Order: sequence, then C-alpha cells, then structure tokens
Amino acid sequence: MNLLVVGSVALDSIETPFGKVDDVLGGSALYFSVAASLLTGVRAIGVVGDDYPMDQLQALSARGIDLSGVAQAPGESFRWRGKYSFDLASRETLETRLGVFADFRPRIPAAFRDTPFVFLGNIHPDLQLAVLDQMRAPQLVACDTMNFWIDSARDRLLEVLKRVDLLIVNDEEIRQLSEDWNVHRAARWVLSRGPRRVVVKRGEHGALLVEPGRSFYCPAYPLEEVFDPTGAGDAFAGGLLGYVARTGDLSSEGLRRAMVFGSAMGSFAVARFSVAGFEGVTPAVLQHRVRSFKDLTQVEIAEALA
Amino acid sequence: MNLLVVGSVALDSIETPFGKVDDVLGGSALYFSVAASLLTGVRAIGVVGDDYPMDQLQALSARGIDLSGVAQAPGESFRWRGKYSFDLASRETLETRLGVFADFRPRIPAAFRDTPFVFLGNIHPDLQLAVLDQMRAPQLVACDTMNFWIDSARDRLLEVLKRVDLLIVNDEEIRQLSEDWNVHRAARWVLSRGPRRVVVKRGEHGALLVEPGRSFYCPAYPLEEVFDPTGAGDAFAGGLLGYVARTGDLSSEGLRRAMVFGSAMGSFAVARFSVAGFEGVTPAVLQHRVRSFKDLTQVEIAEALA
Repeated sequence: MNLLVVGSVALDSIETPFGKVDDVLGGSALYFSVAASLLTGVRAIGVVGDDYPMDQLQALSARGIDLSGVAQAPGESFRWRGKYSFDLASRETLETRLGVFADFRPRIPAAFRDTPFVFLGNIHPDLQLAVLDQMRAPQLVACDTMNFWIDSARDRLLEVLKRVDLLIVNDEEIRQLSEDWNVHRAARWVLSRGPRRVVVKRGEHGALLVEPGRSFYCPAYPLEEVFDPTGAGDAFAGGLLGYVARTGDLSSEGLRRAMVFGSAMGSFAVARFSVAGFEGVTPAVLQHRVRSFKDLTQVEIAEALA
Repeated sequence: MNLLVVGSVALDSIETPFGKVDDVLGGSALYFSVAASLLTGVRAIGVVGDDYPMDQLQALSARGIDLSGVAQAPGESFRWRGKYSFDLASRETLETRLGVFADFRPRIPAAFRDTPFVFLGNIHPDLQLAVLDQMRAPQLVACDTMNFWIDSARDRLLEVLKRVDLLIVNDEEIRQLSEDWNVHRAARWVLSRGPRRVVVKRGEHGALLVEPGRSFYCPAYPLEEVFDPTGAGDAFAGGLLGYVARTGDLSSEGLRRAMVFGSAMGSFAVARFSVAGFEGVTPAVLQHRVRSFKDLTQVEIAEALA
C-alpha cells in the first residue's frame, strides 16, 4: 500500500448515445483507485453519504484498495449527472449535488501518513494543502485541479503547485491556468511555478509529458468503440501513478513508461459505464494492451538522409 | 524528378493574431512542392492567372521544382482570404475567388507521364480521375479531398478511391466521408473502398497512419510558436510523399518514417507566412528536426510486469 489518493467518491448518472445509467459508482478517487490497484496497493481518502451503496464500494477492497479512509457521513452522497453528445466529443453537466462532499475535510489516518506516493485529486486547493500538511515526506506528490478552482482559488492553487512534483491536467485546464493557449508554452510556465514535471491529458489524442528541455507524447490507444468517456482522465492518472508507485522509478524513462500505463488504463475506463471496463483486466490483459503501444508508436528513424 | 503533384497554386491573403499579408504564394500544390522538394525532385501541375507574380513562382525552380506544368491562363489567379482565431484553432474563410482555377483541366506533359509517385491534390474527383488516365502505371498514387467534393461529388470520389493507394485527409474529412465519427472505424471503412493505407491528419495533435491490422501515431512537433497554420497539411503530405519518392520504400516501416518527415515539414510550414518557413531549412536542419521525433516518442516498454 504505497499510493494514496484523495478525491471524490460519487454517484454518477450518465447518458451516452449507447445507454443510460443512474447512480453508478464514480468520482475521481474511485476511477483513480481502480486503475492504480491493477499495479499497486492503494489507500483512498474520501467521503460518501449514508445513501451510498457500501456493499459495492467495499467489494473494491478485493482489488487491493484500502477504503478505511473513505468516511461515511450523514446526508446525501456527491452526485453528478451528465449527458454526452452523439460523438462523445462534448458533454453537458445536467446536475451537480455536492451533498456531504461540500463539507469534506480530508483526515489522513495516522497509519497512512508515511505513504510514499500521493495523488491529490481535484478538490479545493486548501484541502490539497491540508492533506500535504498531514503527510510525512512523500517521495512524489502529483495533483489535479479544474476550471472552478483555477477561477475561484487561483492563489491557493499556486501555493499547491509549489509543493507538488507533478501536475496532471487536461489541455483546457493548463491553458486556463497559464493564461496561454499554446500548451507547450503553458507547460513550461507550470514548470516555472514548482512542479518538475507536467502531464497534459488530451483525451482521444493522447497525453503529453513535459520535463525541462524534454517532451514525450503518448497517443491514446486506438479504440473503434468508446462507450462512456467518464473517468478516463482519472484512470489515466491512476495508471501513471500506479506504475510509478509499483516501480519507484522516478527517472525520465520511468515516467515515460508510466504514461503508457496511464494511456492503457484510460482505454479500459471508456469501454463500459462506471468501472465495469476494468472487469476482466488481468495482468496479462494489461500487459498486452501496454505492449500494443510499442507497435503504435515505433519507428526507426534513419540516422542520415541517404 | 520522380514525384508529380496536381493541385492549386493560389494567392493567399491571411490574417493571424501575429500579422497580416495580402496575395502571398499559396495553394496546396505549392506548399506540397516546396516541402517535397527538400527530399526529391517535384513536377507541379496547376494553373495561374495572368496576374500571378511569375518571378516569385519561378524562383522555386531553384529548389528542384519543375514548374513547366503550371500553365498561365488569361484571367485572375485563384485567391483565398482567411482569418484565424486568437488561438489559431479555427479559421474563417472571408473570400474565395476561383478565377482561372474554375476551368482547370490538368494536362500532364508527355515527359511527365512516367512519373512513379503521384499526389492528387484537392481538386474535383473528375479531374483527379482525368490525371490518372494520363499517367502510365505509377508505383504509388496518393490523394487528398475536401468537404465540398465529399458533399457534391461523392460517387466520383468513391471512383477515385478505387484507384489510389493512399488517402491523406484530416479528421473532419474522414468522418464526413465515412459518415462515422470514430476515426479508427472511419479509417477501416476507407481501407474497404480501395486504398491500402490511409493517413488522418489531426493538426496540432499529429497524424495517424492506418494499414490493415496496424496503426501508427506520429505526434506533431511541439512548437511554442505557431505563426500561420495555412498549408501545414499540404506540407505534411509533401514531406510524406517526398520521403517515399526519395527512398522508393513502400514498406510499412518506410511509411512510418515518411510520416515523421511529413510531421517535420508541417512544423516548418507554420513558422512563417506562405512558404517562408522553409527558408533556411537545409538537409541538416531537416535531419535534426526529424531526429527530435525519436526523443519525443521513444519509450522502452518493459516486457513483463515485474
């Protein structure tokens, strides 16, 4: 159990062109944990209401997810309702009810404070800072954020950046954060604010890892069928951090490999509603998916123009 | 001189957030030729009006572009006027005047009919077919098209597909052509209509090569400064076909390398207005840019989950 994640555990109601579900397990910490748990033990910190289907949540323990840090509080669980366009390229949020998540104050159990790898999911920057204050010298801290915090808590978010090693956001978020529409300049800006590395998630196009003086591009796995994109970005982060936590490899090469694991996890997440896409993903299946990135990206570049 | 291109030679008037020009050299055949000529000799077929700056056009001969197939006809040259959004992500066509291009009937000089590699630029499918009727057993034919022909001359375009080896289009075009929003399914559909290979250009995200049972993703070169995206797709095609024509390598591995040359050429095209981005691009500069894709995409994927 060397990876800790703090974030939302929610109930999602989703409509895609292919189907509709109500109140299925969702939330950034949930998607992250399920993906990461294919690679390492995960400690999840979150809060749910007294209406949450605890049997379904507890069933995830069997995957190697320690849920003892997910508190159950009186009141309603965080609920999100969304509908995707016919081509899944855009989505509309129909309803967001924070419920008990509005009063979430993450408390890290004493036994968790030594966890070496930490992912701060998309919560208020003040809460992200409060989590860091409770941790003892983690080896690597990564964080996510969203447009709402960039707008409403920018100064606090910049404080968070000073204390994290890796920012993982999507292209819209990094543009908004840096106030620059060019993602490569935006990434360099982020590197000047604290993190040594930044990952820009670009959905179906893949993801970009930027380090000082060096970039790596990992495409998305080519899928002919995408069922529900919800949680793909969180599963990507779970795969990336899960691989880093499993190997302890913080080298540039290690991070590149971790990107491929992230991309593979994103491809599983979108195959079904909720985390059902991970059912049947054995180590062999994961390994096969990861290996397929070799053929997808491999090219021998001639050393000279003959 | 083993590569022939048929397409538009135009005068572009362009406004980007960084500047504005009027009546500069443009058109798909022009961008294609300038990019390809860094790798091989190119024969261009097109038409311009009697108002075209022939001295500027003829200056391109020094690059190894044979312009004897570009006719000058009485009347106005093809003109396009466009304006880009602040982030270069979208553009508005303000004016299109076909001029002499409206009556373009490509006539391939006898000396050109044996050219082994052919690129049919974005012209009416009937004209693309007429070009093919004039060629003698080319080794590889590639073609482009656009939304206008997909709408207005779909049946003829499907005839073209039966006779080409490689389709090179952008993601919007392949979606419209296949009537499928998933580009991977769309690519498979194209392969069922004739071409053995299809390349999907995805702008700043890169490009995808799809062959039966195999895909290759080449990212765009990470640029912190993009000045004018006009012609990037045509320069990409020029780099790709230029490399194929130079090496004669039609293997899957050869095509993958060609994709990298295409991507490199696209990155030069966007650096300045018109074809000025190619000024100073020596073989050494090109080689350096191509090599940088190695670091951008290289990852050692572990053979087993240790």
